[in-house]
Amino acid sequence: MQYHVDGDLVPAESATVSVRDRGFQYGDAAFETMRAYGGSVFELDAHLDRLAATCDELSLDHGLTDDDLRGRIEETLAVNDLGDAYVKLSVTRGSQPGTLTASPEVDPTVVVVVKPLPRGGVGSESVWDAPAVLQTAKTRKPPSNTLPPAAKTHNYLNGILARNELVDESDEALLRDSDGFVAEGAASNLFFVDDSGLHTPTAELPLLPGITRSVVIELAREESIPVLQGRYEPSEVREADEVFLTNTTWELRPVATVDGIDIGGGPVTALLRRRFDALVERRHYGGERLPTDAGRDGEHSGDAAPE
Amino acid sequence: MQYHVDGDLVPAESATVSVRDRGFQYGDAAFETMRAYGGSVFELDAHLDRLAATCDELSLDHGLTDDDLRGRIEETLAVNDLGDAYVKLSVTRGSQPGTLTASPEVDPTVVVVVKPLPRGGVGSESVWDAPAVLQTAKTRKPPSNTLPPAAKTHNYLNGILARNELVDESDEALLRDSDGFVAEGAASNLFFVDDSGLHTPTAELPLLPGITRSVVIELAREESIPVLQGRYEPSEVREADEVFLTNTTWELRPVATVDGIDIGGGPVTALLRRRFDALVERRHYGGERLPTDAGRDGEHSGDAAPE
Repeated sequence: MQYHVDGDLVPAESATVSVRDRGFQYGDAAFETMRAYGGSVFELDAHLDRLAATCDELSLDHGLTDDDLRGRIEETLAVNDLGDAYVKLSVTRGSQPGTLTASPEVDPTVVVVVKPLPRGGVGSESVWDAPAVLQTAKTRKPPSNTLPPAAKTHNYLNGILARNELVDESDEALLRDSDGFVAEGAASNLFFVDDSGLHTPTAELPLLPGITRSVVIELAREESIPVLQGRYEPSEVREADEVFLTNTTWELRPVATVDGIDIGGGPVTALLRRRFDALVERRHYGGERLPTDAGRDGEHSGDAAPE
Repeated sequence: MQYHVDGDLVPAESATVSVRDRGFQYGDAAFETMRAYGGSVFELDAHLDRLAATCDELSLDHGLTDDDLRGRIEETLAVNDLGDAYVKLSVTRGSQPGTLTASPEVDPTVVVVVKPLPRGGVGSESVWDAPAVLQTAKTRKPPSNTLPPAAKTHNYLNGILARNELVDESDEALLRDSDGFVAEGAASNLFFVDDSGLHTPTAELPLLPGITRSVVIELAREESIPVLQGRYEPSEVREADEVFLTNTTWELRPVATVDGIDIGGGPVTALLRRRFDALVERRHYGGERLPTDAGRDGEHSGDAAPE
């Protein structure tokens, strides 16, 4: 495997950054985790927009164009002959003289790390082995006036500390805000289904509104499923009919249990997963595969228009 | 200059860590900033204890002894022929398979970065050019249930964001907790002096109680200066008679202005600085230099006993 580091393709084993790089010293870096299907990155423009928004929050003016970043991703996929892949793009503030204070003169370090993933789209295998086992964490999300929640940065200890709390079979932590409202998973957004529709915590809470989250909201609206974004107690999640998590790599991942209480997937989760797979199939693989269960997917034509 | 990386001394230019190292990917690392005077590190045991406490908070069981870490610091100072130096020791969780969830099987990456500093002790030059210009930041400290404040980690964006706010001549940001009480500087602890004594924010607030802070508290007590640890509004700092900051590199640094309001040093700051210099002189340089202004320093004998 080769990675893209600071403008060059290098073997993964020798892909390094300086110990003086602010990305290493302080986690002073923006990143995006993306997924390539059939050689192209899902929602690449949305990812590049969010990377730019993160850099704005950090006052990190890296001076690189989206075309430049896109080119580095494409080169990395191509040299590794990868069509279906995990792609992580990081932009750090580079090495700077002095200590903590960031200089506006940035010589950024750009890193692209890839690894193979299974094919996506219709009839695809999930990257996860089993539905998630979710546990509410004691660790809370930092308020938005302490760290900008929508900025995706290399400061990821809050999520790691929440994951460190997991016991037994739990494999994802559910974090609440300071007031106790559920915000998001350590590396995922939360959705749940009850009689009134599809719920997800409002982005007014300290959470990172994921790109898959946006796509799922749009798909649900196209299916005339009411989508409600609000403030929820953990008990409302535990009492839901269906719970699922989203992130770029997992896509939609059903939740088996929340704090030991059985939930599991259900018809809404299944429908949205089929719709998501069909969207990926159309966009990235030419749409040649038909859904194994045509269902409502078969009725739909044209691209979805996610936020 | 040579640094110590992963067990080896390497030229600074080629001192690197893998892009897959969790220290780079997530800031998943503990560190200490230390100061060597005359070839030995000030309060090294306290630094190693705090590093261990940080690793405990992160559930990062690196498996290295204090003697091992001490040896790497000594080797780095020796190979660079440095007696008076800045020393930063970092221990990361290393590279691990999988993604965010930390594995208990840790192959840590240990990095020691050094740079020369002026001699410390009696009559020494400060490492800062001028008293600090302090500005209260809008960015707040994360509450202790979101990120453990006493853990010194490579997740340093909160302080960087606060520093990014600085305008005009300001060079240190003063951060408050969620309730608006002053906690600490982005890279320093805060002290101020009024009629009732020497004040510093209580470590019950989300702050990192620095080692220099502890030493200064002890020196003040030895001088029978009342030391009060409490919750203070920014206005109390702005109205103080004297304000100073502490950290390992700066030692005690007077504050010229707070939010544009003139403060400056004064007799308590000056006394504590002399006492600090004398302590360093005794411990690290054999105490041969006499204070230029004997003052109360001359009256004191025996080692201070900082926490």
